[in-house]
Amino acid sequence: MAKTRLYRNRAPASAPGPAQPKITLIDYNPSAFTEREVADPAECLPYRQADSVTWVNVDGIGNPQVIRELAQVMGFHALTVEDMLNTDQRPKAEDYGEYIYVVAKMLDVDAGGSITIEQLSLVIGHNYVISIQEAPGDPFEPVRERIRHGLGRIRATGADYLATRLLGVIVERSFAVTDRLGERIEQLDDLIAGRERPEVLRGLYQTKREIIYLRKAVTPLREVVAALWHSESALIREATVPYLRDLYDHVVQAAERVDTSRDLLASVQDLYLTRISNRTNTVMKIVAVFSSIFMPLTFITGIFGMNFEFMPLIHKPWGFALSAGTMLVIVGAMLWYFRRRRWL
Amino acid sequence: MAKTRLYRNRAPASAPGPAQPKITLIDYNPSAFTEREVADPAECLPYRQADSVTWVNVDGIGNPQVIRELAQVMGFHALTVEDMLNTDQRPKAEDYGEYIYVVAKMLDVDAGGSITIEQLSLVIGHNYVISIQEAPGDPFEPVRERIRHGLGRIRATGADYLATRLLGVIVERSFAVTDRLGERIEQLDDLIAGRERPEVLRGLYQTKREIIYLRKAVTPLREVVAALWHSESALIREATVPYLRDLYDHVVQAAERVDTSRDLLASVQDLYLTRISNRTNTVMKIVAVFSSIFMPLTFITGIFGMNFEFMPLIHKPWGFALSAGTMLVIVGAMLWYFRRRRWL
Amino acid sequence: MAKTRLYRNRAPASAPGPAQPKITLIDYNPSAFTEREVADPAECLPYRQADSVTWVNVDGIGNPQVIRELAQVMGFHALTVEDMLNTDQRPKAEDYGEYIYVVAKMLDVDAGGSITIEQLSLVIGHNYVISIQEAPGDPFEPVRERIRHGLGRIRATGADYLATRLLGVIVERSFAVTDRLGERIEQLDDLIAGRERPEVLRGLYQTKREIIYLRKAVTPLREVVAALWHSESALIREATVPYLRDLYDHVVQAAERVDTSRDLLASVQDLYLTRISNRTNTVMKIVAVFSSIFMPLTFITGIFGMNFEFMPLIHKPWGFALSAGTMLVIVGAMLWYFRRRRWL
Amino acid sequence: MAKTRLYRNRAPASAPGPAQPKITLIDYNPSAFTEREVADPAECLPYRQADSVTWVNVDGIGNPQVIRELAQVMGFHALTVEDMLNTDQRPKAEDYGEYIYVVAKMLDVDAGGSITIEQLSLVIGHNYVISIQEAPGDPFEPVRERIRHGLGRIRATGADYLATRLLGVIVERSFAVTDRLGERIEQLDDLIAGRERPEVLRGLYQTKREIIYLRKAVTPLREVVAALWHSESALIREATVPYLRDLYDHVVQAAERVDTSRDLLASVQDLYLTRISNRTNTVMKIVAVFSSIFMPLTFITGIFGMNFEFMPLIHKPWGFALSAGTMLVIVGAMLWYFRRRRWL
Amino acid sequence: MAKTRLYRNRAPASAPGPAQPKITLIDYNPSAFTEREVADPAECLPYRQADSVTWVNVDGIGNPQVIRELAQVMGFHALTVEDMLNTDQRPKAEDYGEYIYVVAKMLDVDAGGSITIEQLSLVIGHNYVISIQEAPGDPFEPVRERIRHGLGRIRATGADYLATRLLGVIVERSFAVTDRLGERIEQLDDLIAGRERPEVLRGLYQTKREIIYLRKAVTPLREVVAALWHSESALIREATVPYLRDLYDHVVQAAERVDTSRDLLASVQDLYLTRISNRTNTVMKIVAVFSSIFMPLTFITGIFGMNFEFMPLIHKPWGFALSAGTMLVIVGAMLWYFRRRRWL
Repeated sequence: MAKTRLYRNRAPASAPGPAQPKITLIDYNPSAFTEREVADPAECLPYRQADSVTWVNVDGIGNPQVIRELAQVMGFHALTVEDMLNTDQRPKAEDYGEYIYVVAKMLDVDAGGSITIEQLSLVIGHNYVISIQEAPGDPFEPVRERIRHGLGRIRATGADYLATRLLGVIVERSFAVTDRLGERIEQLDDLIAGRERPEVLRGLYQTKREIIYLRKAVTPLREVVAALWHSESALIREATVPYLRDLYDHVVQAAERVDTSRDLLASVQDLYLTRISNRTNTVMKIVAVFSSIFMPLTFITGIFGMNFEFMPLIHKPWGFALSAGTMLVIVGAMLWYFRRRRWL
Repeated sequence: MAKTRLYRNRAPASAPGPAQPKITLIDYNPSAFTEREVADPAECLPYRQADSVTWVNVDGIGNPQVIRELAQVMGFHALTVEDMLNTDQRPKAEDYGEYIYVVAKMLDVDAGGSITIEQLSLVIGHNYVISIQEAPGDPFEPVRERIRHGLGRIRATGADYLATRLLGVIVERSFAVTDRLGERIEQLDDLIAGRERPEVLRGLYQTKREIIYLRKAVTPLREVVAALWHSESALIREATVPYLRDLYDHVVQAAERVDTSRDLLASVQDLYLTRISNRTNTVMKIVAVFSSIFMPLTFITGIFGMNFEFMPLIHKPWGFALSAGTMLVIVGAMLWYFRRRRWL
Repeated sequence: MAKTRLYRNRAPASAPGPAQPKITLIDYNPSAFTEREVADPAECLPYRQADSVTWVNVDGIGNPQVIRELAQVMGFHALTVEDMLNTDQRPKAEDYGEYIYVVAKMLDVDAGGSITIEQLSLVIGHNYVISIQEAPGDPFEPVRERIRHGLGRIRATGADYLATRLLGVIVERSFAVTDRLGERIEQLDDLIAGRERPEVLRGLYQTKREIIYLRKAVTPLREVVAALWHSESALIREATVPYLRDLYDHVVQAAERVDTSRDLLASVQDLYLTRISNRTNTVMKIVAVFSSIFMPLTFITGIFGMNFEFMPLIHKPWGFALSAGTMLVIVGAMLWYFRRRRWL
Repeated sequence: MAKTRLYRNRAPASAPGPAQPKITLIDYNPSAFTEREVADPAECLPYRQADSVTWVNVDGIGNPQVIRELAQVMGFHALTVEDMLNTDQRPKAEDYGEYIYVVAKMLDVDAGGSITIEQLSLVIGHNYVISIQEAPGDPFEPVRERIRHGLGRIRATGADYLATRLLGVIVERSFAVTDRLGERIEQLDDLIAGRERPEVLRGLYQTKREIIYLRKAVTPLREVVAALWHSESALIREATVPYLRDLYDHVVQAAERVDTSRDLLASVQDLYLTRISNRTNTVMKIVAVFSSIFMPLTFITGIFGMNFEFMPLIHKPWGFALSAGTMLVIVGAMLWYFRRRRWL
Repeated sequence: MAKTRLYRNRAPASAPGPAQPKITLIDYNPSAFTEREVADPAECLPYRQADSVTWVNVDGIGNPQVIRELAQVMGFHALTVEDMLNTDQRPKAEDYGEYIYVVAKMLDVDAGGSITIEQLSLVIGHNYVISIQEAPGDPFEPVRERIRHGLGRIRATGADYLATRLLGVIVERSFAVTDRLGERIEQLDDLIAGRERPEVLRGLYQTKREIIYLRKAVTPLREVVAALWHSESALIREATVPYLRDLYDHVVQAAERVDTSRDLLASVQDLYLTRISNRTNTVMKIVAVFSSIFMPLTFITGIFGMNFEFMPLIHKPWGFALSAGTMLVIVGAMLWYFRRRRWL
């Protein structure tokens, strides 16, 4: 799974490794259900026109040749194949007539707490859904469970509902990621109140950049789901529309949360900067207090430390007491002044 | 009532407690009026098709089962039920044909002065209104009073007018909250003028975050009311439209006030930052004044404190006077200089 | 006249005092003209359907009962009356079929230089205009003069033209207020160049807040006039449209001026902040110069002030001269360094 | 020519002086050409309905009476005349049926390098163009030359083409002004790199304000030209449309350049502020280095300068050397520390 | 190739030199292919109406006469020729009926790492494409290779596909430039973490300005491609539309990357400013620590350095030890205090 590298502007054309992608095929109708692994994309051909709903999931695009073969079997346009292999697409939905091609971004948090972004290509056909994931590792197991055990309405509905469901899983994931983000911002807020530590600054700006990339991944999904919802394609049935509207609500909420996170982070950052200013101010006050008290005192000791032969007070028995008294008066006056200014 | 926790991104799926929600049913027409508590949601069934207007209020969603039963009795869509139980919805209005489902956010200020946000679900049917409040505690007593005593036009009108009225109560609440917010900003402004205190900074940023959440709760209500106003649903009668337009005006004003609060707070924050800069400047001036006056003086005393055997002036009777005079000249020159620069 | 209090979020429902509003009625047609004070709103009834144009001006809403009676006489909707009495409306234009209800904000500068905002309600009927001013004091005398002496085209035109004219007076007022604002910003700019004074900072932020309120009062008037201009109501005659277009131009200009004032003020504020930074920099330089010159010198005097029995140079006749020379070299080197860095 | 005064919000209703405006009339068709000065506006009457194209240029509006007479001769609406005399209009295009009234702003740079803004009123009639310039001084000489010598297509086309041409001259002028602005920003950028000088700060904010006024003058011209381009008025012929589209391109570019200048200036201003912060940092380092080296040293000399009868080391022959050695170690340690932190 | 000079607001009307532009002509159909250099623009005439697709590429506009002749041969509008020679156009697409004129900006990175911007004019005719490049040097070699060897679908399609392809090359280039930009921002981010160096500041602001110019070059291309995509011109065939949609996707992505770069740079800049503040804070702490420890100590040594005849403690054998002990207590107290504040 590709980590959000900072400043990554372009993913490499070739995928992480030459690993063979794992292809799983699930075919179901209200009464029957098949699940198997597919070695050769050509095995999918018989399912293309079948009445049952077929879901082909490709996990990893390490071997472009497999994707190309699958695309040929399914009859995809050359541009679709290109987009599937280029993992740096924007989220989008394109109606190619026979199928709708959807690109979305799957967010996740890896073991180290870093946010990862992975591309998902969905092809919604008449009776099939093809899902192609950039990297191995799969969040769709709950959907498979529902199909296997015939839970909910999924077995009784079509390919469009399955696709809605898969997109729903992705949106759920974004919520998990924004929750994580919220916790991190809260931690930063706590850290700021405590001792100055360099990791706070790094953490603030690291999080800021992650939000830049999150926005790019989540916000355009809004238009994608809206396009499906309002699609005039026969591939999107009337009965699926309420679920798409519901999905749209969730996507809007996910996008809003990213924006809220950004606003909250900006507020934490402002707080941090103000604290630095406040601290500099406090430090300066210490310098000012010590300078204004001890500079005059040291000056007085300097006077009576001079070696002039003829000096006033030097030979008086009360000379020292007088100078010490003067010093005390100065200290008292300065302390009174600083207390009045509320510096102490 | 859920407090606005900072960074809360998602409310828990389960409600605060397993407390049984309190369900009250009010049924009225111009001439008759019934009010009673309902133990079993099934008791609402006879009212569903009645000619009189029925208002069922559910206070607290602690027991999801009750909501589900009520929804089944009233014939709500599965997605509606889900949304009622998920208290982290965006304000929205959805037309389901037989009913319109509205989500709004009720604002309040709790005893400690914190702003609380609670979700309200409204279902506007042909002759009924169902209101579902996230937490116990209820601002709708004045509306009930009007129904009980037949005040105003409420008894003579339909379910749509009742819903408008309930939304109106929520908007009134927002005004109370923004008033409170305004007072707090005014307090912060006063505090800034006084002594530096750490709670000022915390208060500024706490308020800033509350405004972020307030905006999220209030601003989308504008679109919700506009959607009802321009709705083509037969559930919204022609006669209710002027009241919806009026409600819209109020919502726009509430949203504008939140924005004004934000602008005012930004201005207070700028003022605060400028004051810190000004203070640092003042502190530095004190250091500069003391340094530039006492450093030269102390240097002079240092010279005549040296133990060279052959020193000038040391043995002259007027040596001390000369050095003291030089020091006075220096002090005078520095004071004159600082006065000309208007630092003193 | 209500002063723009800071953070005022809501005007009190009751007006400044229980003073009886002054109602004046002017009735005119091209050939005739009547002007009189009205004690009882019912006296307006005969004019409601008259062919002549009638202008009823209510000065002060201290006594809500009077407004209510007048509204009943004229047949206004209940919501219109509510809005007239709530002085915290947004500027808006609402078409009620038989009349158009307009809310606008009248700006003024009081004796102390503070900006005041007063609400004006205008009702444009078939042959009448009702104007209701929040507080006594009236800018419409010039319009009355024109009616009295039959100047310009006002006597020959209808109620819609009269209303345009009244709105025109309000826009003229905004120009006076923005001019005043411009002068104040110019004063602030001059003050910044001079000595640091606390009133500068207060003045900056006070002006900033006034602009926040001005924008809220002036900007929505644009939509109000545009709504009248493009209105399909029969109450707005074809011949009045060019005057509404002209009024629209003026409103847009007034709104632009408020925005320009905001931009200029932001620029003055930036200038102010930069000056503080510059000053802190200058103050620090003084500290740096004195520290770096006198600290080494004082150290040298310290060395030769030590009481070691065996000290070098102490007993040489040229010892003092050598140490003094070293000090001069240090002073010279530091001065040369600071001059090269252009600090002196 | 009126200088862009800062904060000018409203030009005086009366123009700079009571000078008599200079009126020139040019009448041409493909084969003939007349040019003469006009003393009395009434002389223009015969040209109003002529088949040839007539261009009346009024240079200076010092004498409003002349404008009024001309307007009467040409049959202009009262509002048009008002707008011509009020030199504080926004750029706009208004279709009065028989003519189109256009207001634009002519920019120029005066001898002192200040940007000046002058109002131009254009009236595009069936076969005539009236241009009214706020102040004497005229950029249209090149157009006149082209007419006089029959260069290009100007003699063969109509009044609409002439107006397009005149607006083109104004846009060309804006390019000259933005070029000048660009040079000034480049100078400021160079000045910032050099020695701190007060004129840099003044220059930055002066330029910032000029850009605020430039934007107000240039940006609305975009809508003006677009309105002419898409105008359905018969006064704009089909053949002129490509030239209006081209003019529109130029206006958009001029507006973009003002925006680019603003962005560049903001970047220069950021650079300036960062430099101040950097300088303060450097100055502080000098203070820190001198304080941390000389304070301990002076303290050591102070110890051995004390007059206790019983002091350690004082009477040892190697006492001075030991203290001097200690001091050297301290200096060395501090220098090593500062070098490691890369402050030196 | 023109370098992005800062503040360049207008390119000179004349191109870099009087060099003769190199004109190459490629003519192809599915079965045949010709490529040759053209000396006289008139040689292009026979290809204008041919059935084969003709691509004329002009490399460098140093000699305007050649462009004018070519335009005459091809029958271009006078405004098109003007735009071709003015290298300071905004990206745009204009439909002239017989041809579509497109202006785009080609980005590149020169040897020194600076971004260069060059203008490209494309004329898409019925069976021809004319491409005019501002400066010599050509990125289109890969397209030529594909034509020469008949790779892909280019030989089998029309002029519109060729133009799409050429625009595609330009968009690919922008990706290379934004990648480069991303690397530079990453370098700046690394530099900031290290030692303070003046080139960091210059680099930050230099990059900021380059992004201002990049945005101006890339963002409007979005509208250009959208205009071609949705064009109703017969010159754009149905079959080319998917490729234009794909191109549009790429352009949107390129524009988004520039925006992302801007956001990332802003974040790096914030980080830089915060680091300066942090450093100043640290420096101040050093001053504060040394001042508060050594000022009291030096004062104590000063006291016992005074030459009063009658001084306390001076003659006690334990006098020195007492004073030294007091000093140690002071040092200890200050160190404890600073450690508690976590400054050490």
